[in-house]
Amino acid sequence: MNELKNDRYLRALLKQPVDKTPVWMMRQAGRYLPEYKATRAQAGDFMSLCKNAELACEVTLQPLRRFPLDAAILFSDILTIPDAMGLGLYFETGEGPKFERPITCKADVDKIGIPDPEGELQYVMNAVRTIRRELKGEVPLIGFSGSPWTLATYMVEGGSSKAFTKIKKMAFAEPKTLHLLLDKVADSVISYLNAQVAAGAQSLMIFDTWGGVLSPRDYREFSLQYMAKIVDGLTRENDGRKVPVTLFTKNGGMWLEDIAATGCDAVGLDWTIDIANAKARVGDKVALQGNMDPSMLYASPQRIREEVAHILSDFGEGTGHVFNLGHGIHLDVDPDHAGVFIDAVHELSQPYHK
Amino acid sequence: MNELKNDRYLRALLKQPVDKTPVWMMRQAGRYLPEYKATRAQAGDFMSLCKNAELACEVTLQPLRRFPLDAAILFSDILTIPDAMGLGLYFETGEGPKFERPITCKADVDKIGIPDPEGELQYVMNAVRTIRRELKGEVPLIGFSGSPWTLATYMVEGGSSKAFTKIKKMAFAEPKTLHLLLDKVADSVISYLNAQVAAGAQSLMIFDTWGGVLSPRDYREFSLQYMAKIVDGLTRENDGRKVPVTLFTKNGGMWLEDIAATGCDAVGLDWTIDIANAKARVGDKVALQGNMDPSMLYASPQRIREEVAHILSDFGEGTGHVFNLGHGIHLDVDPDHAGVFIDAVHELSQPYHK
Repeated sequence: MNELKNDRYLRALLKQPVDKTPVWMMRQAGRYLPEYKATRAQAGDFMSLCKNAELACEVTLQPLRRFPLDAAILFSDILTIPDAMGLGLYFETGEGPKFERPITCKADVDKIGIPDPEGELQYVMNAVRTIRRELKGEVPLIGFSGSPWTLATYMVEGGSSKAFTKIKKMAFAEPKTLHLLLDKVADSVISYLNAQVAAGAQSLMIFDTWGGVLSPRDYREFSLQYMAKIVDGLTRENDGRKVPVTLFTKNGGMWLEDIAATGCDAVGLDWTIDIANAKARVGDKVALQGNMDPSMLYASPQRIREEVAHILSDFGEGTGHVFNLGHGIHLDVDPDHAGVFIDAVHELSQPYHK
Repeated sequence: MNELKNDRYLRALLKQPVDKTPVWMMRQAGRYLPEYKATRAQAGDFMSLCKNAELACEVTLQPLRRFPLDAAILFSDILTIPDAMGLGLYFETGEGPKFERPITCKADVDKIGIPDPEGELQYVMNAVRTIRRELKGEVPLIGFSGSPWTLATYMVEGGSSKAFTKIKKMAFAEPKTLHLLLDKVADSVISYLNAQVAAGAQSLMIFDTWGGVLSPRDYREFSLQYMAKIVDGLTRENDGRKVPVTLFTKNGGMWLEDIAATGCDAVGLDWTIDIANAKARVGDKVALQGNMDPSMLYASPQRIREEVAHILSDFGEGTGHVFNLGHGIHLDVDPDHAGVFIDAVHELSQPYHK
């Protein structure tokens, strides 16, 4: 394997000194880039793009050709695991992901197994291997998965949801069934992420997009517990180097202490929390990733730079900060504004790393 | 005016002793009740129901006939103000509220005026007067409004939104225009709520449904500032009795200290915050309203009672707690489960008020 030429991202996650604050963007490979749309059109539908290692590699690298990003992230979807479990993932235009065979009862949970990462999910590992090779050691590669709770919401609701009625009914009326499901998904995520590390991922991120719709008690029981299990079960080394793990619960700002206590290396923050507050609460334990409102990229270059300056100043001196948006970049953002953002982080952060 | 027979709700908001914890439910007059659906069918569409004082009174009282609730809330919509400003409110089936003439620029803001509460909005005041009369002093009547930020999201987006793209573009690119709009809306809300008090409302609530989509800095600038202005401008007395004001920002759990500092009497909590944590942070300053997950009403009666017991125990001894759901009751809830919830609050809270 190549030596890493830019390891700023890994160093910040492990709270080692850096020359400037590293930056990447959630969904940096995506529809705001015309070259992404061209490759996606070539692939056909979204899952065909995910399943083609060469094209998945191509879209992963596209934003790195435009911007001096400090990390690449595997191009894939969080729903690969439930799809591999046989739930029949499909996409309806304008409606988001759906499952043909959602989980409705214990018998459904009993039927599903742990997918083989080098079997049904080998296309993901092939993408990881291809990307890692093509990155040529420029920046580290992030592997990822959805959290068990977040995956289960799609599996039980049968798609996206607003009120999460079905899974909450299951949580409150049949908690044992849901725990059985979450445990199987957690085991699947462990095997999936460890395979990504074996295939070349140098850092891991778990997206808990929907943990924030739970009460604190329910969050600990149905979401955090299973992320903690995953953290415990992960391979934390690759090429003799530590593989940092970042947990991100959207709207989880009130539970940072609990998230940090799982043993993860970093906590992702959405934009609804003041990063100074987050640092004061858990900055001695974990690194922080975040947290500019993705909508700020609609603003003028000057306003974007001001916001970056605010967040850098809120975090203050020292390492332990990976700059990012608080959620995925919006699809109608001007790519030049993403460039302004990334440059601003690198330029304005240098005084904090003297 | 009649003496109040049950003032438990007002007393708890002012942190005066009570015999048991008062309880009401956001959207307690609504589609989960078959009698509501019947009256709504009689009225025609939703706004016709709001505009008919007798029928609005009827649906306001319906839940009180079923359940021993400790407060009634005016049946109306938060979008009455922008409608009265001439934006052309309409409802498309399954799509939520929309505006024919959304606010897109400064010229649009310049055109709108402060609606006259006894003019274009007199139907609301008529409903307040009718309900107050028909309540016959059984329980207090809550008047309400949306927060300026929340109203502005609908006015600028032209309806409901997920990413709030248009209003955030305005906030970041044309903040002066947005401030002009928010200031006009705040003045309108002050005049609207003061008129509700004059018409008989005994308590006021401001719903900031969408404040939680902002960063802490933007929340203070675009939402909280205007709620504070409203609190300052309100008539706080009716029939020689204090009119308590409750502010509720959904997903605002991280900003309780700032909300409490506005001078409001109580802060509404959604279910994503531990009420013990909220009490420790701001319980010396304000009363708290909340905060069971509305989805818990899908669970068994026993599980509902358990959850009520948990929340009561988290709040602990003493007054200053109005029990409620963390958001509106879901339309497909069994009304009997709402009854179980309300009875559980009254029964299980008594030991905390010895």
